[in-house]
Order: sequence, then structure tokens, then C-alpha cells
Amino acid sequence: MVDKEKLKKEDTLALRRKHIGPSCKLFFKEDPLKIVRASGCYMYDEEGRRYLDCINNVCHVGHCHPHVVSAATKQMAILNTNSRFLHDNLVLYAQRLTSLFPEKLNVCYFVNSGSEANDLALRLARTHTGNKDVITLDHAYHGHVSSIIDISPYKFNHPGGNGKPDWVHVVPVADVYRGKYTDKDHTLEDLATKYADEVKQACEAATKQGGGVCIFYAESMQSCGGQIVYPPGYLQQVFKHVRAAGGVCLADEVQVGFGRVGSHMWAFQTHGPDVVPDIVTLGKPMGNGHPVSAVITTREISDSFGATGMEYFNTFGGNPVSATISNAVLDVIENEKLLEHATMIGNYLKQEFNRLKEKHMLIGDVRGQGMFLGVDLVKSRDTREPATAEAAFINKRLKEQYVLLSADGPYRNVLKFKSPLVFSLDDCKELVDKLDNIMTEMEQAEKAALGKVIVNGSVEHTNHQSQKVSNPSPNEIQVKV
Amino acid sequence: MVDKEKLKKEDTLALRRKHIGPSCKLFFKEDPLKIVRASGCYMYDEEGRRYLDCINNVCHVGHCHPHVVSAATKQMAILNTNSRFLHDNLVLYAQRLTSLFPEKLNVCYFVNSGSEANDLALRLARTHTGNKDVITLDHAYHGHVSSIIDISPYKFNHPGGNGKPDWVHVVPVADVYRGKYTDKDHTLEDLATKYADEVKQACEAATKQGGGVCIFYAESMQSCGGQIVYPPGYLQQVFKHVRAAGGVCLADEVQVGFGRVGSHMWAFQTHGPDVVPDIVTLGKPMGNGHPVSAVITTREISDSFGATGMEYFNTFGGNPVSATISNAVLDVIENEKLLEHATMIGNYLKQEFNRLKEKHMLIGDVRGQGMFLGVDLVKSRDTREPATAEAAFINKRLKEQYVLLSADGPYRNVLKFKSPLVFSLDDCKELVDKLDNIMTEMEQAEKAALGKVIVNGSVEHTNHQSQKVSNPSPNEIQVKV
Repeated sequence: MVDKEKLKKEDTLALRRKHIGPSCKLFFKEDPLKIVRASGCYMYDEEGRRYLDCINNVCHVGHCHPHVVSAATKQMAILNTNSRFLHDNLVLYAQRLTSLFPEKLNVCYFVNSGSEANDLALRLARTHTGNKDVITLDHAYHGHVSSIIDISPYKFNHPGGNGKPDWVHVVPVADVYRGKYTDKDHTLEDLATKYADEVKQACEAATKQGGGVCIFYAESMQSCGGQIVYPPGYLQQVFKHVRAAGGVCLADEVQVGFGRVGSHMWAFQTHGPDVVPDIVTLGKPMGNGHPVSAVITTREISDSFGATGMEYFNTFGGNPVSATISNAVLDVIENEKLLEHATMIGNYLKQEFNRLKEKHMLIGDVRGQGMFLGVDLVKSRDTREPATAEAAFINKRLKEQYVLLSADGPYRNVLKFKSPLVFSLDDCKELVDKLDNIMTEMEQAEKAALGKVIVNGSVEHTNHQSQKVSNPSPNEIQVKV
Repeated sequence: MVDKEKLKKEDTLALRRKHIGPSCKLFFKEDPLKIVRASGCYMYDEEGRRYLDCINNVCHVGHCHPHVVSAATKQMAILNTNSRFLHDNLVLYAQRLTSLFPEKLNVCYFVNSGSEANDLALRLARTHTGNKDVITLDHAYHGHVSSIIDISPYKFNHPGGNGKPDWVHVVPVADVYRGKYTDKDHTLEDLATKYADEVKQACEAATKQGGGVCIFYAESMQSCGGQIVYPPGYLQQVFKHVRAAGGVCLADEVQVGFGRVGSHMWAFQTHGPDVVPDIVTLGKPMGNGHPVSAVITTREISDSFGATGMEYFNTFGGNPVSATISNAVLDVIENEKLLEHATMIGNYLKQEFNRLKEKHMLIGDVRGQGMFLGVDLVKSRDTREPATAEAAFINKRLKEQYVLLSADGPYRNVLKFKSPLVFSLDDCKELVDKLDNIMTEMEQAEKAALGKVIVNGSVEHTNHQSQKVSNPSPNEIQVKV
């Protein structure tokens, strides 16, 4: 049961509806994709159609990378058991992984998912600080287990969420384009301080409330929140406030780690050598699709946790196969110089997105670094009103043209580029050309619709864009990605 | 980095101490094993010494089973991506898996670990019932994430635990040998009712307290609690009480599922066709070592969860590789008739353990079914006082003779047999003979020690076994497994 389509697509879908929980959603739910194989940056559907994958940040070194597959294959045939036995792969990988971090981050725990990593990180912080309260960024997503939903506004503030527990303090995300304070009214330096002061106030509230500051929880760049890069100096100030209040600082690198940002292996490093978290969580790209994740922390914190006497045993975590696969992923990152590649591709794409911005008023902001980029779509550059429907429309049209891109952020108006790192210059050109054409089409459709509207006389033609006109093809944009 | 020892054992250990969290414990911590390969029921250390594996309930169909490895290998080279794309392997596995359950259990969620499965199960139950309180068995272990530690007395009552949250109700485990009520004073029928009445009282307490009954949480046979088999009729009564109070019933099959009990695929089925849980969680053996687990539930419960609008997305859960591996495990279970085999081996071993019981007073009870067996060691058959040190001593001696067995239960006095299902009759003979010899040695040492003690005149020779004498080799039993 491995390499050919066994069911017609409609039968696959029917079986899925019958046997998979309805909370598990499909991409493009109106016309979901059936993918049967993938290689590098390309996914292929059951008809052999090739899709350019701009969204898969898990198959980090390219889908089905032969070096990773080969390492996994060999190890699976030799040994796959739990970490209560000594094994070289586990400790050698731990040594190699920690060597990629600032010196004080030198103790690992291996788990199976980013959610498990974040849950364990929270336990480590609670034990070490003796404090309870968590400071989290608005719109943050850190995982799907109960304890982590509690600190993820992306979940608890959305449908089905139970709101914020009283020990969680949500601070505005340091989004200089669309956040509480923006670059319209402030310098970046001021913004760093203003946003950091919000954390300081949360620390004061946590202390006053009695829970005390346990941990500041943040992705090093915020992903689901809309590809947010914090202003320089922000994390320096935040870490200072949090530590002064007795808390520890966590960098969630589940989405942004392992060289995605190009200039560094970890995104927190882009904030300067003086930003060193106390705990780092890793996930998605670590095993190129294999379920493996990790928590990296200091000896001090791991000793506090060890001193309680409670064992931490994770059945699959750190098994020889997971360790081998993770090691092979690092091999590929090194051998193929993927950090340099991510920088080169990222710079090129950002330049191209900025070129599109000059041409298309729909683009309000281009941000990010390396292969973690966001294109923020707006109805008006003045008001920065999010162009949500337009983002969905663009992704639908891109899919029709065999390019997979997604939108995220609180308004789902930010096109989110996070492809496997092996994306090529030709791939960039394909993405940019298609995006350019679609935006041009939209503008033409808008003009045509505007003409039609004026002819019909049903809407007054004013200088500002009307709500109706700015949605170029209302019939087509029902598809929610 | 896959098939040979790369480090000397002491260097592996030193690196582990340096880079792996101290909460992650090794088996045989005084002299841990370095295992470099495994096959079937055998593990091999760095010197090529072969160990008979009586404890690995994860590598269920045998370590490195070629059919499983081959299926994994093929699929890894073709596609490994998330379940937001349609894939045949996912839905065909879901169809096959649910076909092995009573009809109403026909909706799946795929995750990476038993802990993730149990966390999701709790969320499903909370959403469906609208109630909060959980009824759990004493000594139960359901996983290592925060929400599940909260309902696991095996964790929260042990060092480093924070005790019981007020919404958790711990009921005595229906252990007829060593529990609150025993077969000394009651018939099995009475015991079922007495233990079920404890659950009824917990339901009343939960209702009175205001949280309401959300879920009754139990392994179908309790593993960490000491290989406990509940008396016939217990679960029937419990499920009735819990449902009458508005709760749902969960069977945790993470350790006991997938045919381990021999007579049935799932251990809850041994309690009769009228025992049908509302939610079942699966884990360890599902992928023969690969990180894959699942929650199986009813359409009704999954619809309640879906109706909240909150998506459930698990990055690695249900990917094509995990689905393929899980499917291959079912192939092997069927092709090699492992249920029949588990029954045959289980019956033989149980008979042999009972033969040893006739010979060695140390054995107080032999229990379990299929390849889930427990040998409860006692200092006295009258008092049933647990023989903890003796259990540790036996496991240490067995290890010296290249047999891996473990002890568990609240007193760590229960020898726990849970080998891969491919254990052979010769393997049984090896285990039983070695166990027999060690127990005989212990008895001889005890007699010798007794003689010595009498000669020394330091202990009065009485009819009852003195504490000192019953520990045959105090110097040797410091090793805690």
C-alpha cells in the first residue's frame, strides 16, 4: 500500500468523511488536493499534476530527501527502541544539536511533536521558577495539547476556544505594521520599547495577582500571527523585564528554526548575540516529516526539574531512528549549504515581492527574512485595512495554476511563504510571475467591474475604494483556505 | 551513523549525562545497557551479547520486522506530508482500524503518542459532556503531558507530583489480590460490585461538587499499577454508573491493545460484548516503534467536537508514512496469526508461572492474559506483603543472565511480562528456567543466611520469616530498576 492511487479521489474523500474526525480540516476544502508523491519542492496529485510547494515548512530539506530516507531506512532495520537504553545516535545528535546553540543551552529532551515540546517546556519553567503565570503574545499558536491551547490566543480566542485562563497574560504582538503601535506614528526604536513595556506591565500584573512570572513564551518570529518580525531591541528589553520579575524566557523555534531565516540556525539569533533564551523548543522541520521534536535548555533548569524526582519518559522520544533522521537533516543542511541558500533565495524573493508592491496597491507590506516571508495584503495602504478575501482569492487562483501558498494572520490576509529550503530561483520566478499575473487580473477585473457598476449606476463612483469594488470577483472568493 | 558502535560505552554514558535531561532515566542505572541492534525478541549489546526481551511492548510484532521496515522504507521515499491533503493510506488504515472495533467506534484522530491521544480524548469528552470531572483509577498512568499527569496518580502521587486536582476523583483500582477489597474476604462477583460502587460514589461526589461527571478513565487492564485484571462484571457496572451520571467511558489501550491479550484485538473486549467504551486510545504498539497513536470514538462525540468550530491539526499525525507503518503492523498481526500465538504463549507461560508458584513461596499471585502477565511477589502468602527488593534482585540476576524483565505496581514487586508478540516457546523456557533457578538460589541463600544468623546468634529463629532473613542478599539488591 505505498505508491499508487488505490481509490478514486471521491472515494478517498468519502472514506475520510466517514472515518476521520470532522475537526481535522483539509486544505482547499471545496476542492481538496489528493497528493500521491512529492520530491524537493514539488508535490504531485493523482493525475500527475505538479504543484510548486511554497507552504511545507516540515519537509524542510525537500520532500523525501534521499539522504534522510536512506539514513532512516538503514536504522529502522537495525534498532528502534526507547531511550532507556544507551545509544550512540541519541547522544551524538544531542551533542551536535547543542553545539549549534549558545553555550548555556546544552541539555536536551527529545519528544515527538512541537506540542509535546511546548508542554514539557512549560513544566520545566514552572518547576524551575516556582511561579505560575505565563506571558504570551496575541495571536500566538504553540500547539494543540490542552496546556498549550491555554497559552495560545490563536486557539483560545477562536471558535471553540474557552478564552484566557487567569494565569495567562496576553500582550500585544510587536507587529510594527498592524499592531497596537505602528511605524506610522513611531520609530522602530520607540516601538521596541513600547511593546516591551507591555510585557513589563504584564510582569507587574502577574506579580501583583500572586501567580508570579513563570515564563515569557514567544516564537522568535511569529508565524500564525502573520509572519511578524519584532523590532530590533524588543527581545533584549523583554528578556530583561521577565528575568527581573523572576521568570524565564522561551523561544519557540518550531516553525522558524533550523536555518529557515538563513542568516542563523535559529531565528532568535537574528536579534543579536545578547538574546539568549532559557528554553528553546524545536519541531516541524527537525525530522523532515518524521515525528521528532525537542526541548533545549540550561543545566540549571534541567537540574531543577531532575531534582523533583519525577522521571520524564517519552516512549518514542529520542529513539535511534528519530535521532538518525534528525542527524541526517543536519547533514543535508550543512552539505547543501542551505542557510546560505535560504539567504540568497529569501533576499531575491523579498526583492521581487517588493517589486510587486511597487506595481500592485494590494500589497501593503513585505516582511520576514530568509525563507520566512509575509506579504500583507491591504484594501488601502492608508488605512491598512486587511484584504482577507483577496488573499483567499489569490491562493485559490495560485492553486489552479499549480502553486501552493497559504494565508494567515488574525485577518488571514498575509500571504505566507515558508517552502522547503531547497526552493530554487526558477521556483521563485514561477511563484512571482503567477502572483504578478493574478494581481494584474484582479486589477483588470476591478476596473471592469467598476465600469460595469458605473454603467449600471448602482454605486456612486467616489475617490475612495468602495467595499464592493475592492472585492473583484465576489462569486469566486467564497473559497476559504 | 547507523550500524556500529561509534563511542565506547563510557563515552556514550558521559555524553548522555552531559546533554540529556537528568529526568530521563536509564534501565539498570547502576550498569545500563547499550543496545546496538535488535531482531524479533532479541536485543544485542555492543559486545554482541544477546538479551531475551520480555519487556518491549512497543516493538509489538518483533524488533525491526522486515515487513514493517520495508513498507516504511517504500513510503518514505514517495511522500510524507500532513493530513490536510487527501491520501489513500490514511483513510484505508482508518477504515481497517475501525473495522476491528464495535460498530459505534468508527471515527479516528491520528496523533503521535499515547499522551497526545489521551489529551485529545479528554478534550473530546469535555466538549461532548459539558462536564469537567474525571474519575481515574489509583496507580493509573496515562501519559506525560500536563493534562494527563493531572489524571495519573502514578505521576501526581509520586516524587515531584503536585497531588490531585480537585476535579479528579481517584477510585481504588479493582485489584482483587492487593486492592482495597480482596478475594480473601469476597467473591469475585461481590468484588466487582464493591469496586464499581466506589465509582458510583465518585460520580455522586462529582455531581455534588458541581463539576459533573465528564469521563471515566481506565486502561482495560492496568499496566503500571501491577498487571491488574478487573473482576468480571466490573466494567459493565462502572459504565452504567458513569453514563447515568452524564459521563462517557474511556478505554486506554495504549499498553494492552493490538492483540496483546490474545483472545481479542482489544483488552476491553475480554470483559464481554456489552462493554463498549465511548472513546478508545491507542499508542505504543501501533507503529512497532514508530511514533504513531490514535483516538477512536463515536460519530456523536466527534460531531460535538467538530461543532465547536475549533480545528484539530496535528502536524505529523496520520501522515502517509505513519499510516503505512500502522497498516503493515496490522498485516503482520494477521499474517502471522499473532492473536492465536499470544493466546498459546500466554497460556503456556501462565501455566509455567503457576508451576513455579507451587515450588516457590515468593510467588503470591500469577495473573493476566495472553502476553500481558504479572507475577506478584510476596514476603508472605498470608499477609501478601510485597517483596519489592526480591523483585529488583530477580530482575538484576535475570539481566546478568541476558534476560530483560521489569517490575512495576505501587510496590514494584510485580514481575511484568510484556514481550513482543513473537516470543517463542523456547523463549518461554529460557525465561522460566532462569527465573526458577534464581528463585531456587535465593531460597538456598536464605537458608544459608538463616543458618549463619543462627550461628551468630544475632537474630532469634522464629516461625515467621524475619525482615532481615527474607532479603537474601542485602548487598546485591541495591540496584533499583
